[in-house]
This record gives sequence, C-alpha cells and structure tokens, in this order.
Amino acid sequence: MNAKPVHAAQVLFPVVGDCLQVGGMPLTRLAQRVGSTPFYAYDRRLLSERVAQVRAHLPPAVELHFSMKANPMPALVQHMAALVDGIDVASGGELKVALDTGIDPQRISFAGPGKSEAELTRAVAAGAVVHAESEREIRTLARVGAALGIAPLLVLRINPDYELKGSGMRMGGGAKQFGIDAEDAPRVLALCAQLGLPVLGFHIFSGSQSLKAEAIVEAQAQTFALARRLADGARDPVRILNIGGGFGIPYFPGEAALDLAPIGAALAAALPQVRAQLPEAQLSIELGRYLVGEAGVYVARVIDRKVSRGQVFLVTDGGLHHHLAASGNFGQVIRKNYPVAIGNRMDASGLYPGARETASVVGPLCTPLDLLAERMDLPQAEVGDLVVVFQSGAYGRSASPQGFLSHPEVPEVLV
Amino acid sequence: MNAKPVHAAQVLFPVVGDCLQVGGMPLTRLAQRVGSTPFYAYDRRLLSERVAQVRAHLPPAVELHFSMKANPMPALVQHMAALVDGIDVASGGELKVALDTGIDPQRISFAGPGKSEAELTRAVAAGAVVHAESEREIRTLARVGAALGIAPLLVLRINPDYELKGSGMRMGGGAKQFGIDAEDAPRVLALCAQLGLPVLGFHIFSGSQSLKAEAIVEAQAQTFALARRLADGARDPVRILNIGGGFGIPYFPGEAALDLAPIGAALAAALPQVRAQLPEAQLSIELGRYLVGEAGVYVARVIDRKVSRGQVFLVTDGGLHHHLAASGNFGQVIRKNYPVAIGNRMDASGLYPGARETASVVGPLCTPLDLLAERMDLPQAEVGDLVVVFQSGAYGRSASPQGFLSHPEVPEVLV
Repeated sequence: MNAKPVHAAQVLFPVVGDCLQVGGMPLTRLAQRVGSTPFYAYDRRLLSERVAQVRAHLPPAVELHFSMKANPMPALVQHMAALVDGIDVASGGELKVALDTGIDPQRISFAGPGKSEAELTRAVAAGAVVHAESEREIRTLARVGAALGIAPLLVLRINPDYELKGSGMRMGGGAKQFGIDAEDAPRVLALCAQLGLPVLGFHIFSGSQSLKAEAIVEAQAQTFALARRLADGARDPVRILNIGGGFGIPYFPGEAALDLAPIGAALAAALPQVRAQLPEAQLSIELGRYLVGEAGVYVARVIDRKVSRGQVFLVTDGGLHHHLAASGNFGQVIRKNYPVAIGNRMDASGLYPGARETASVVGPLCTPLDLLAERMDLPQAEVGDLVVVFQSGAYGRSASPQGFLSHPEVPEVLV
Repeated sequence: MNAKPVHAAQVLFPVVGDCLQVGGMPLTRLAQRVGSTPFYAYDRRLLSERVAQVRAHLPPAVELHFSMKANPMPALVQHMAALVDGIDVASGGELKVALDTGIDPQRISFAGPGKSEAELTRAVAAGAVVHAESEREIRTLARVGAALGIAPLLVLRINPDYELKGSGMRMGGGAKQFGIDAEDAPRVLALCAQLGLPVLGFHIFSGSQSLKAEAIVEAQAQTFALARRLADGARDPVRILNIGGGFGIPYFPGEAALDLAPIGAALAAALPQVRAQLPEAQLSIELGRYLVGEAGVYVARVIDRKVSRGQVFLVTDGGLHHHLAASGNFGQVIRKNYPVAIGNRMDASGLYPGARETASVVGPLCTPLDLLAERMDLPQAEVGDLVVVFQSGAYGRSASPQGFLSHPEVPEVLV
C-alpha cells in the first residue's frame, strides 16, 4: 500500500502562535499593512539566504545571475541586483528595470527570440550584453552598432544538441525557436567575423525546473563539452560562458527539494579542465525561479464558505487572474495543487490542533478553472481567514491574466 | 483511412486579392492604422450580424443578453449594448463599463461567486440586478439594501442538478462554487422571505462552449422543468428566468459550427407551456463567446524566420502573453491549434497559390509554451508578414498574462 504523496514541508516561513510570519511580522498584520487582499509578499531575508546558500555550493569562480523574468517587481530586482553578479533580461521592459537598479550595464544580458530592432538598439545604447538567437538578430545588431557608433557586446545563444533530462521545460535539444543550432555555429561565427562583430562567448541553456541534481550535472558536463567544440570553431577566445540554470523547486505532492551539493561538487571538479581549455572564460549560472520562487507567498482572504452537495468551497477574493500557475493553467498537463495553507491557522509542526476538513479553495471568477486548491486537507477555515499559496515568488503575478473579469490589480510587497 | 481533421472554413472575414479584410479594409492597411503590431481587431459588422442571426432563431419573447466577461473592451460593450436586451457582468469593474454605456441599470445583471460587500453596494446603488450565489451574499444584500435605503433587485443563481452535456466547461451539476444547489432553494427562499427580500427569479446556468444543439436543447428542457419546481417553492411569482447560454464556437480541427435552428425550434415549442406555468416570467439567454468570439482576430507580425533542425519557426512579435488560449494554456488538456493564417497571403478559396510549408508560429517569450501554431500547413511566410489568429474575439486579451516578460500591452480596435 503506497502512502499518498504529500507536499514538501514548508519550513522557510516561521510560525509564531498560530500565524505564519512573512517579512518578520504576522501575516495578519502584514495584511493590515498592505491594506487590502489579495496580495503577493516576498521575503527579503529568504531572498538573501537563498543567494547565500547557492553561493556556498557554487565554486567562487562561477558567477551567479538572476533571471528577472521569474519576478520583475522593481523593488525585488533592486534587492537581487545587490546580491548577484548579473541580471538576465528578456525584453526591453525588463532591460529598463534592470538598468534602473544601477547595476553595471555590462552585467546585464538580454536573451530571447524575436527581439525587435528597437529593443536591440536600446540594449546596445545601454551597453548591455546581447545574447543573439538568430542570424537576423546578428545582422540587425551589426547595423544598429554601426548606426550608434557603439560596438555591440555579442554572445551567441546556442540551441544544444542535448536536453536537460526530467526538466519541467525543455528548452534545448531538437528543433527549437531558441538560439542557434549547435551544428550551425561555425557558419554563424563566420558571419559574425564577416560583419566585424567580435563574439564574446556562448549562452547554452538546456532546460529549467529540474529537481534532479544528477540530470543537471550531466547537462552541465555536456555544456562544457559543447563549449569546447564551439571554441574550436571561434576566432575570438571565449570570454563569457553562460551555462544556463535549470534548478527547480518543489511545487507538487511527492516532489522534494533539489540537492545542491552534488551540483557544486561536480562544477568544482570540472573547473580545472574548463579553465585549461577556455582560459579566458568567465562562467556564469543564471537562476530565476530557484532564487525567488520559494521566498514568495500569494495571500487571499476567505469571503464566503459554501457547502455544495457535501463539498466545502472556500471562496476567496483571489484566484486564477492573479495566480494562473496555481490554478493549473500554465504549462501543466494535469492539474495538481500548489502547497496551500490557512495562514492564521498554522502551527510550527504542521499539525494545527483545531478541526480539519477537506476543502477546495476557489476564486471569484465565473469559471470552473478558478481553482487554487482542489479538495485539500486544511484547517477548518472561516470567512476572514487568510489563504496562503506557497512557492509563489516566481511566475506568479507577472504570469497571470490580471485583466480577466476586470478585478483590481493585485499589489505585491517586498518585506 | 480517416482524413486528418481540419479547421472549419473561415468565411466571415472577406478576402480581396491576397489580403484578409477586417472592418472593411485590408489587414495591411489596418495594421498601419493601428500603428504597431501585435493587436486585436473586432469587426462591428460581424458583431451586429451575429446578434441578428441569433435573434432570427430565438423566439421574439426570449431576451438576448451579452455576457461581457467574454470581451470587456468598452467600445465593444457600447456597440453590443445597443444591440442586446441586457448585459451580464461578473465584477465591479465590469459593472462600471456596463453602466458607462448608458444602458438601463435594471438590464444589467451581476453574477459570480465571491462578490465583495463593496461590489454588492455598488450594484445596489446602481440599481442593477444581483444574481446571488450564496446565503452570505443574500444576507449581505439585505444589510446593504437597508443601509442604502434601496430595495435590492435579487435573482437567485441556481446550481442545477444536471449539466450541459458535451460542453467545454461544465458549470452546473455536482458540487460547485456557483449558485445555490437546486435542492437547497426552498430553504434559501425562506431565508429571503425572512429577510424581507423579494426574489425576482432564477438564473440557471449549466455549462458553456457546447457545439451540440441537442445537448443545449436537452439542458434547456431540464432548466424549464427545474424552474417550475423552483417556482412551486417560491412565494413571489417568477419575473426573471435566465436560462444561461452554452452556445459554442468551433476552435479546433474537426469542430463544426453550432446549428441554431433546432435550438430556436425547441424554444418556440416549449414557450406555450412555460408561459402557462410561469406567466410573469421574462426569459433570457446570455451569450458571451458566441456573440463576439468569431468577430475578432489577433494579428502579429513575423519578425524572424528560423529553420532549426529542419523545422520552420515563424517568430512573431505577439504570443502567449497576449493570447493565452491560443497557446493552449487556458483550460485545454491537450494543446490544439487555433485557426491561423498569413493575413497577407490568402485567397478566397483558401488555396493560396504560392508556396506552402509546414511551420510553427512562436512568440518572443523565453518559454516553449509561447506557441501560437504548431506545425501547421501555411503559405510560406517572410519577415514582415501578418499572422492572423481567428476566433479571437472572446477570452483573448483580457484572459492573457500581459505583464509576462514585461512587453508592451496589446492594443485592441473595434472597426
């Protein structure tokens, strides 16, 4: 008989009395400080601790970048900018926020298919590094650089000929819209030379949201091997080597946290050979979700409690329009529950002593898709209680259809 | 040997030369008028024609309401307000837009679980009809009405004990967050009487997006039977009976348009008995997607054309952040392609004479989810061409995560 899989224990946010603490204060007080529900809250301490934890495992020579598409809140990006070695942006809009932090523009890298000429112009004018994804982008960069009289800082994004196994999203291997196919690199490098564009290095991204350290280690080894092959065909020495990220966080029942130790150990073991073969290369890892995902919660208030044909529904003022991923409509094939709790009915052991029940948490939208938790075991909640969705610091607010049904926008706070 | 299922032919928008016409002008010119891509465009003529078509089939005694959650663009809602008998809103934000059209407030109905006290106050102050979904809402309405000195216009939303078969979204039957379980109605009607709240009638919604006329006819028959049972337990005569909607439009290969004729015929046949049993009841049908979905297109420009490992990718300036449903991430279990075309490479026969190819249409986001068309047979497109996603007039812009990756918001025009 197999035990039913459960969510990984939520241990990052402390519990005092029966109340979750976010940003060092009771959630109930934080809700009063925000002034309305629902809201997103990101905990500065947890952000800083996560960066420190990753750094403790990475060899010091490997730079750590924050991929801000995971959470573009300006205050959060500012906080991260002081902790990491670079910020990866994915649009002109993100570039603006990154530049506003005051970070050295050379520490900003801009990747993404379909960059417009206007965006490329902004990036070159800013002095940011551009990760080109196609021949068209390279030709546009050459033209933009000539027009501005500024030499573009060019890195080639490579679509590898392997993929990160067991990852939530495969972004390399096979036919893809991302980057330049590894086997086309020699031709593209020749084009860059012909256009008079030095190539600073390579960005090789093979997948994201993996919880398997061995898969990440294997992909990194393949990435180093590919980088060496690419370097053989390049006329410039490799100065920048971004090996992507791929570190996942546990969302669903049965998932467990990624073990960083073997990844750090494998990187340390690989470094001497990488240095010997690519002596000028500055290595970097880019992480988005892994740095910020677990530091954030989404909080909504129970505004109705209904029993329909024997099932309990907690109707909240938040829902799918604010947190699409928690509703199961963002890349998931089968809907599973995010970790959800009643923030004012907790205890540190996870065993709240009051009455419990099986309940579904739904939002105010007129659609059955508006489901934050389906038949979960929860403390018995009442109108006014605060529902907390954990693991909500990445791909939450910005990845949700806030205009759906014309409810107010959801505020977010960094505490 | 089965033929591969294909999309229903797109015949609503004319083709002149090789160019799709939207709002009576070539798409290429419309793009110049909008001034940027991507954009949504809704065609006034098609909106008006669709309303006329539905009215031609419905018995004159049945009112037609527009459910504006399908498309809350103010100019479009204004256009629809002049054509229909009522507007159904799902939030305080939608209520504001509906009121701004100048429609008689009594012709606005406000449904949706989790209405806040502030929203209920606004609705009562406006003089709109409130479709209460729970005992809490009824109690709040009584309190709000007393505080304002205005008698609330109350309709009970009922969760039926059956469902619309074969519908895209089942919103009735079983345990649901929507409405009051049919079997609880006598108790809730007694509560309303005790609170001194007259009940104007019932709103019975059993599902949406059905392409099967016989399923809709069956659900409507069940709805009339349920209404009669509810009326037996009510102390006030039924004045309002909203029988929901459920009319679907074809999105995916193999789907065919809904046949309105049998629905209209069945309604006409049922009316004498309904009138005999519920002599004061004004019947209404509420339609959102069916009225506006086929009148709208999403248009994006090809900004890169890539061949990766033998597959063609058309990279556009639009994508998932503007049109989540077309990317397959809004309620679909298995991703299927929306009908997609190259708007400046069309012909009226659907057999564009130029070269064709199998291509995928992707957006500018750094995620493999950003897919507007997967390996479709399309005219061979070049940079600058206009990709058109049909069936995009409902649940498009407002149901998409526009903030995702911080690209500019997408404009929408009514032409």
